[in-house]
Amino acid sequence: MSAFETRRDQIYDWLAREGSAMVLFEDAEGRRDPTVRWLTGHPADALLFLTADRKSLLVPWDINMAKAYAQADIILPYSEFERRPGAAILGAAEKMKIPPGSKIEIPSVTSYPAFLNYVGTITDFDIICREHGAGETAKKLRAVKDEDEIKIYRKAAKITNEIIDHLEKNVRSGKIKTETDAALLIEIESRRRGCEGTGFGTLAAGPERSFGIHAFPAYTSAAFAGPGLSILDFGCRYGGYTTDVTLTFARDCTAAQEKLLTLTEKAYKLALSMARPGAAAKTIAASVDSLFAKSKKAMPHALGHGIGLEEHEDPAIRSRADNEWILEPGMVFTLEPGLYDQVHGGCRLENDILITEKGAEALTEGRIIRL
Amino acid sequence: MSAFETRRDQIYDWLAREGSAMVLFEDAEGRRDPTVRWLTGHPADALLFLTADRKSLLVPWDINMAKAYAQADIILPYSEFERRPGAAILGAAEKMKIPPGSKIEIPSVTSYPAFLNYVGTITDFDIICREHGAGETAKKLRAVKDEDEIKIYRKAAKITNEIIDHLEKNVRSGKIKTETDAALLIEIESRRRGCEGTGFGTLAAGPERSFGIHAFPAYTSAAFAGPGLSILDFGCRYGGYTTDVTLTFARDCTAAQEKLLTLTEKAYKLALSMARPGAAAKTIAASVDSLFAKSKKAMPHALGHGIGLEEHEDPAIRSRADNEWILEPGMVFTLEPGLYDQVHGGCRLENDILITEKGAEALTEGRIIRL
Repeated sequence: MSAFETRRDQIYDWLAREGSAMVLFEDAEGRRDPTVRWLTGHPADALLFLTADRKSLLVPWDINMAKAYAQADIILPYSEFERRPGAAILGAAEKMKIPPGSKIEIPSVTSYPAFLNYVGTITDFDIICREHGAGETAKKLRAVKDEDEIKIYRKAAKITNEIIDHLEKNVRSGKIKTETDAALLIEIESRRRGCEGTGFGTLAAGPERSFGIHAFPAYTSAAFAGPGLSILDFGCRYGGYTTDVTLTFARDCTAAQEKLLTLTEKAYKLALSMARPGAAAKTIAASVDSLFAKSKKAMPHALGHGIGLEEHEDPAIRSRADNEWILEPGMVFTLEPGLYDQVHGGCRLENDILITEKGAEALTEGRIIRL
Repeated sequence: MSAFETRRDQIYDWLAREGSAMVLFEDAEGRRDPTVRWLTGHPADALLFLTADRKSLLVPWDINMAKAYAQADIILPYSEFERRPGAAILGAAEKMKIPPGSKIEIPSVTSYPAFLNYVGTITDFDIICREHGAGETAKKLRAVKDEDEIKIYRKAAKITNEIIDHLEKNVRSGKIKTETDAALLIEIESRRRGCEGTGFGTLAAGPERSFGIHAFPAYTSAAFAGPGLSILDFGCRYGGYTTDVTLTFARDCTAAQEKLLTLTEKAYKLALSMARPGAAAKTIAASVDSLFAKSKKAMPHALGHGIGLEEHEDPAIRSRADNEWILEPGMVFTLEPGLYDQVHGGCRLENDILITEKGAEALTEGRIIRL
């Protein structure tokens, strides 16, 4: 049984428990949901219907792509439904012989106006759109990686670590002079090692721009790793799964800059030491907040986030009161404390952490590099 | 008066006409809305509130970024509202002294469950979420570019055309050997010319992979521009605005491949000849569909789409019955006929078209390059 079938089985079981006849997952521009890839292998741009009688129907935008990548019981091109989700839902219900009156679950991100529209036009079925539906169930399942996924992550991390070493070497030698030099080295070296590419738009910010959490533009032809603080945030996407690390390069630092660095390193070590099965993500993040507050500093973003087929997924690693995530073996997430100052610049230290039976393992070797 | 103020004025007028007290625009991960940038200059990740008494409040995720880029009457960091849209709406209503009972417009993409949640928790105001609200009004305004925007587009197109020539030269000389070589040349040359970067992930597909509408992975270390058909789809983002062109490189073609090429060129010429003020986008796209149908071919995607701050925006250039767009001066969109075959590979020819008072002008010089 393929990993895709095993995963689909979990959704079929969920459908049976919920008494729903069919569920729709949709991956489209502006509404990305890699659960479609997780369940079929199809990389992007498709509707996926799963039914209570354990059948799958994939409706891809690009039928050739589906022939090359997708595993599903039935595959029909989206053009058969004029590329309209409403028409596809009706078509799927007919094709899969869904009895009138049945419950059909649609994605929880469906907009309020679109929902009204479906309910007005699809009158033979009970259209369900809810916060804790099939999409959230799949996301929760995805938060704990299975053996296949952890194997992929070890490979992705190995490649990432090779590239980190490569970057350090080339910055030290002076071969990397600009933000673009740094960013493109990652593009080349990740693909050379079999990656699909980078996991998201690389952020390379030299000393003049590192004050931003996410530099804008993402990288430019400006100097990189000169005096002050430079940030390099990137990920390698291997087999669909992305790593996410941030290096800070520090040169000729002032006392104020050195203070940002040492505080960030201290925060990272504290967070890693607390990460283990059973730990509350909220507690770890709150401890880092307190550490920074003691030095009258504040981190303007979350301490971390799960990674996987998406660059940001569950579990959330932040101190907000409503964060209920408890760490468990198989979770893969970032820890990425950072501090940013309009005058002195910013620094961030980010690595990818795997929760194991015994504790936590940093898969990647992101670091603050003092030049 | 800045372009941002002129644009905000149009939304203030709309609010007065609609009898709404305040409107929220949101740009966030998974819910990108560059209308925030169009109205303030702030590049990404912020909430923007505009009120009927003609005041603007920007709530950015990154306050340092806002200080560097944004124009708004009041700027407050999102962290003041725990980075929760619901809390920000209540906070903005208080700050902007919105009278209880007033209408507050929220984005039409708000999910049905989130809408229920707002309505349940924000009880002092009338929360409006509708298909043809402020967001769609802004999108319609954005579909017709103003003079400032057309000036930016001419510059973006000039850079794009220089890069097209550069690509052709380097493919002919053999300097570009792989998909990655082609893609990274664009990354380097666009930034060197002052672009923010590429407008979207460059797609470079050698002969083995050009059958896909959007190649997956986007580019690899595979050979590019060898015997058969290779597709290169990219855009340059300058001052926020992206171009979008596709070149097809053809080498040692079979008769079947040559037929795909000549049909695509014929379709492009036909579409361009029909583009002028007053023309229905649907009619142009339907004419191309008919042309292809005569040769028993079908294009699996739309003929084109508007471009601007987003890679896909209004007007829609497709033959679907509900496409009501009529071309008018200032519109900028792609024409991109293409044909794809699992065996012979694919080809696409895409350029960016500006509608003028007199007719249509191709801003870019994308082409089929026979090697």
